[in-house]
Amino acid sequence: MRVQVESTGFFAPSKVETSAELATRCGTTEDWILQATGVARRHVCTTTVSDMAAQAARVALGDGPPPDLILNCSLTPVQLIPDSSVFHQQALGFEGIPSFSIHATCLSFLVGLHSASALLTSGAYRRILVVSAEQGSVCRNFEEPESAALIGDGAGAAVLVPTPERGSSELLAWHMSTQPSGAEYTHIKGCGTNHHPNATSTEPHHNLFHMNGRGVYRSAYKAVSVMLDTLFLKAGMDRSDVALVVPHQASGNGLKAVRKLGFAQDRIIDIVGEYGNCIAASIPMALHHANNQGRLSRGDLVLIMGTGAGLSVAGALIRW
Amino acid sequence: MRVQVESTGFFAPSKVETSAELATRCGTTEDWILQATGVARRHVCTTTVSDMAAQAARVALGDGPPPDLILNCSLTPVQLIPDSSVFHQQALGFEGIPSFSIHATCLSFLVGLHSASALLTSGAYRRILVVSAEQGSVCRNFEEPESAALIGDGAGAAVLVPTPERGSSELLAWHMSTQPSGAEYTHIKGCGTNHHPNATSTEPHHNLFHMNGRGVYRSAYKAVSVMLDTLFLKAGMDRSDVALVVPHQASGNGLKAVRKLGFAQDRIIDIVGEYGNCIAASIPMALHHANNQGRLSRGDLVLIMGTGAGLSVAGALIRW
Repeated sequence: MRVQVESTGFFAPSKVETSAELATRCGTTEDWILQATGVARRHVCTTTVSDMAAQAARVALGDGPPPDLILNCSLTPVQLIPDSSVFHQQALGFEGIPSFSIHATCLSFLVGLHSASALLTSGAYRRILVVSAEQGSVCRNFEEPESAALIGDGAGAAVLVPTPERGSSELLAWHMSTQPSGAEYTHIKGCGTNHHPNATSTEPHHNLFHMNGRGVYRSAYKAVSVMLDTLFLKAGMDRSDVALVVPHQASGNGLKAVRKLGFAQDRIIDIVGEYGNCIAASIPMALHHANNQGRLSRGDLVLIMGTGAGLSVAGALIRW
Repeated sequence: MRVQVESTGFFAPSKVETSAELATRCGTTEDWILQATGVARRHVCTTTVSDMAAQAARVALGDGPPPDLILNCSLTPVQLIPDSSVFHQQALGFEGIPSFSIHATCLSFLVGLHSASALLTSGAYRRILVVSAEQGSVCRNFEEPESAALIGDGAGAAVLVPTPERGSSELLAWHMSTQPSGAEYTHIKGCGTNHHPNATSTEPHHNLFHMNGRGVYRSAYKAVSVMLDTLFLKAGMDRSDVALVVPHQASGNGLKAVRKLGFAQDRIIDIVGEYGNCIAASIPMALHHANNQGRLSRGDLVLIMGTGAGLSVAGALIRW
């Protein structure tokens, strides 16, 4: 699909929690947290999800014209109705722009980028804002140090447009797979019909994040490996063609796994130590980080990939 | 876009609540409910959202091959993580099929149908299951009879494929608009960061549906009128070209408004009296109802349209 990421945006709250601070709260040590998660610092939201979304979106939109579609691709909802895209649009001061939300947990941004590419190609829209904003910190279970220490807050955004006539930008290949057999590895059981907030059987822990780190890692590693083989086969390309890998910032070990999967360390964007796992916002935050550092050059082959609750895995090969 | 709705599916729970029964619970009369909502009966889920989704999906899938994408387009979440598409896939007994969720409240199915059309056109997928399943009954506020009496449970589904070579099926035109200024008209304020279930400031009513019926009606009528003008302009067509209108089953008055907007009664699918407003499932349920009655003929011009919390309005003109 001839589409181009015209610009990217980023926002991280100024409030920082170090792993030393968090260790006390979780009844563990800084070393244990660093070992288990690879996260030294995480930023924590003190405003709102929509404020973060708008801050990142403004960076991406710059002085350009408003988008003609706002796609919120996040896990964290502002409230159940309306969907968060409406509140993000409100925070941006827009009115009348079609907007809706995509939820694929940590893969929401990547799935949104792919869907937006298809919508642009169809001609329905000409300028799509894809934005992810996450305040996972409100769902941390401090009795489960591994997942609690992993989560950070933040937002990332991208403006997607049809590739200009002489441009070479292209979404070359896409692959995704979802295995419900892995649904138990990562969950928040509340906030839906399974454990409605008003049900007497709903307990506070149902509304908090749970992760079986080892289970996720094993299943995800295997699934990502298969996904990558399929993706490169579809593209008729090889891992060595990739100039830059922008992975979901799942965890320190998750990022080490990307190396094991055949990519050199210096080609992998790794910001998990500073920001933690910002759920769906991790990928666009890493993308903006790379962009800001001048590491994304037009014509380069970029692999964006990740894993998400589901268990889902997905990857996109992009001619930047 | 050259896409075709190959088949449709429907499920309504067997348990029925009449407006006479509901009147007692809401401290009002059957006549008042009928006058205010136009809903005589609504079906209420006694199993799970995913069971309803799977039942409707199986009707749509029939003996055909499995889909290569499952798109859950619903408001009601099973739980916060993973997204409901995973549980719907599980209920269908599938494994490995990419799946994610789209949330645009009552417009989720229509937005999903449009996004799926773009994804098919892009070549990323060849057979997409779009499914909406709603158990809004768990969010009814019986102290607000108008909205409580409006809501019903159910599920609807469609299988979307590229149009076969000699077929004439096509999605001809699309238009959508979202006005955050109308966000207060319809909401469930809970289940997100605004009123997290574990926050001491969260009260039970935050987790229940609220609607300002008059406010919605006025804003929606105006917005739909503008949307339709734009839609027909885009398509270069006229209201009189439309063989069948499949509207969101918002309410009795909402369906009367469709007539006022220029469509003859006998061309409008109206099932709100029997099923109530089944949120995002209303449109695919109405679509299947029409299909089942033989009212959808290949080559006919079909208008699918609706309103949703946001406030959003959208319409698609489809050569069936």
